[in-house]
Amino acid sequence: MKVTVCRKSHFNAAHRLYNPKWDMAQNDAVFGKCNNPNFHGHNYTIEVWLTGEVDPETGMVIDLKILKELIESEIEDRFDHKNLNLDTVEFKNLIPTAENICIVCWQLLRAKFDSKFQLKVRLYETERNIAECDGN
Amino acid sequence: MKVTVCRKSHFNAAHRLYNPKWDMAQNDAVFGKCNNPNFHGHNYTIEVWLTGEVDPETGMVIDLKILKELIESEIEDRFDHKNLNLDTVEFKNLIPTAENICIVCWQLLRAKFDSKFQLKVRLYETERNIAECDGN
Amino acid sequence: MKVTVCRKSHFNAAHRLYNPKWDMAQNDAVFGKCNNPNFHGHNYTIEVWLTGEVDPETGMVIDLKILKELIESEIEDRFDHKNLNLDTVEFKNLIPTAENICIVCWQLLRAKFDSKFQLKVRLYETERNIAECDGN
Amino acid sequence: MKVTVCRKSHFNAAHRLYNPKWDMAQNDAVFGKCNNPNFHGHNYTIEVWLTGEVDPETGMVIDLKILKELIESEIEDRFDHKNLNLDTVEFKNLIPTAENICIVCWQLLRAKFDSKFQLKVRLYETERNIAECDGN
Amino acid sequence: MKVTVCRKSHFNAAHRLYNPKWDMAQNDAVFGKCNNPNFHGHNYTIEVWLTGEVDPETGMVIDLKILKELIESEIEDRFDHKNLNLDTVEFKNLIPTAENICIVCWQLLRAKFDSKFQLKVRLYETERNIAECDGN
Amino acid sequence: MKVTVCRKSHFNAAHRLYNPKWDMAQNDAVFGKCNNPNFHGHNYTIEVWLTGEVDPETGMVIDLKILKELIESEIEDRFDHKNLNLDTVEFKNLIPTAENICIVCWQLLRAKFDSKFQLKVRLYETERNIAECDGN
Repeated sequence: MKVTVCRKSHFNAAHRLYNPKWDMAQNDAVFGKCNNPNFHGHNYTIEVWLTGEVDPETGMVIDLKILKELIESEIEDRFDHKNLNLDTVEFKNLIPTAENICIVCWQLLRAKFDSKFQLKVRLYETERNIAECDGN
Repeated sequence: MKVTVCRKSHFNAAHRLYNPKWDMAQNDAVFGKCNNPNFHGHNYTIEVWLTGEVDPETGMVIDLKILKELIESEIEDRFDHKNLNLDTVEFKNLIPTAENICIVCWQLLRAKFDSKFQLKVRLYETERNIAECDGN
Repeated sequence: MKVTVCRKSHFNAAHRLYNPKWDMAQNDAVFGKCNNPNFHGHNYTIEVWLTGEVDPETGMVIDLKILKELIESEIEDRFDHKNLNLDTVEFKNLIPTAENICIVCWQLLRAKFDSKFQLKVRLYETERNIAECDGN
Repeated sequence: MKVTVCRKSHFNAAHRLYNPKWDMAQNDAVFGKCNNPNFHGHNYTIEVWLTGEVDPETGMVIDLKILKELIESEIEDRFDHKNLNLDTVEFKNLIPTAENICIVCWQLLRAKFDSKFQLKVRLYETERNIAECDGN
Repeated sequence: MKVTVCRKSHFNAAHRLYNPKWDMAQNDAVFGKCNNPNFHGHNYTIEVWLTGEVDPETGMVIDLKILKELIESEIEDRFDHKNLNLDTVEFKNLIPTAENICIVCWQLLRAKFDSKFQLKVRLYETERNIAECDGN
Repeated sequence: MKVTVCRKSHFNAAHRLYNPKWDMAQNDAVFGKCNNPNFHGHNYTIEVWLTGEVDPETGMVIDLKILKELIESEIEDRFDHKNLNLDTVEFKNLIPTAENICIVCWQLLRAKFDSKFQLKVRLYETERNIAECDGN
């Protein structure tokens, strides 16, 4: 039987939603106050959901310590207390919406897990705004 | 790659669970104290989950402001601070269980979104009682 | 040393904010949509905080089972799945605002506890609207 | 249309992660401080998700009172305030990881529900560590 | 009898902790990664607690709509989706720690409420880091 | 102006409520299923609230990193993944109720903070059972 396990983590970052191909008026029309040139920020919560067989020797899909450390090295070290637009290569040319942050986190983590696992990432920008992707 | 986004909202309403085809004894047996003729009420939380492609120009599946406003006009304006049994056409002839409220919200929202989006609605009647539907 | 213990509980009820001495226009001006004549409702959360000496024999200020049962008999049995305006004597002539519900709960519980305990009651009408009283 | 309903519950238990086929050094390497011979414990939260057709007579997939009582008799009475390793037959020869507790709960509940329902169980060992299974 | 009421609200902002009288090494030593020159950010939650007599005509300490609107005009309009260091006069010469943001919010709100009310402000920078002040 | 800051943390532990001066019948009568000889357990949440003057140089009452590390060394290292009755000196001869755990945590932390700070500790045994003490 397959089981899905989840580890939840957090990072706090600044960002700005802005499309450089558009003028300021169009950016304001689409992104509103999220287009503040001086940035604003969020406490992001990330949930990493991994599906696989339970190892009968350990009773685990994956050691949650390993999952925790991978989230730290791949996500927290990269994005925590950073300005997503200025401090990261991932969002140099990609608008850091919740959707795109979610996809980037999925890609960064997908590269680290054996292909036998299915992976889903859920990202909370606020308690009320959430994005989720599973690679499909 | 497809992404699912979610917007969470709230409405507070009174309701009563009661099947007019049954006598009071049978209503009491099935619905218990939810069959109080004077009504009781809940803080309902609704989560609207929408799946679609990310627009590369905006980095968004859908502008969450639009999603927020649709939930306000379709759900909150209709149900917030209302008596679901007495004040709404949707529950004139439909028992306002969490399941039926969830289906009605799904139908109201489905009519407003382009068919390219998949839609799932989750409704919390309390922290412990939840209903969810996606149209299947 | 004194310790304060808390037990949290819930009840779901319908209510209407309405002052019978005023006409409908004034009630609407003051209470807005909370003055719906057909009622609306909430999931109320109540926290009961009790301060006293720790009994060295039990390590307890009060047995939380006793506290839990008192909340059930005094608060839940009285208000859960009720219409506060129609089904209770407490709010026959008292507007069931969060403030007044909080005071009534405090009074009902105060009568049941030994005077050696200090009592504080906190009432959540929603996650965002809270009332608290301690008898002062 | 099918709807999924959920009922959430809790139990508090002690456990130890330990594989009797391994020596202490290997158990420590794999399970770390979860291998404390004197046990540690958790507040487990269980969510039971049931999918089925809505009965037009009741507006319900299943009476949530029945669901609540089944969780009490099958899960809470068995595991609440217990030592999972010492007090239960289920974990005599099975390591009580979140994954295995989730599978056991799913099996115990699956046996009690009509096969027309789909069943998913989610188990929170902490707010940050979660397991989920649906029988596939 | 006096009652305390609370209204909860949110704002999302960028900030940097930095003392201009110190060199970069000392700022790093004291503020660590909070001294990122490109800023980071948070979802701030503010709770405004107001203590006063219950008006027997309304059953209210204060109309929570008024409290909500004051928080919007005094706090949200000023700080939401802003860079606290660059976009506000309040933090031009004041380090925007949770403590100082809490004091500033208290002062802004204190000026708007009648002196008959006691005021307490609680500010959550994250779920785990909180500041609170009441003017004493 | 004084400000109160709070840091929240967690530890997971096993315990048993049992007074060795009483026979089993009396222990069962008082402590019920909490007197399971094989122990049960909880996810404890601890909130440490510290009141003091804000240092104008740092904008802080206390560096929350220091507070976090003190909670780790004094509380988490001592109690996390432990059996409170068997693995700790603090509860060798003291019943590990929420009240007593709260007092012990307060005493352990009080010894580490300058007397210019006021200290309050809140301990959640479950979401519904809470103890709090401030040394008075």
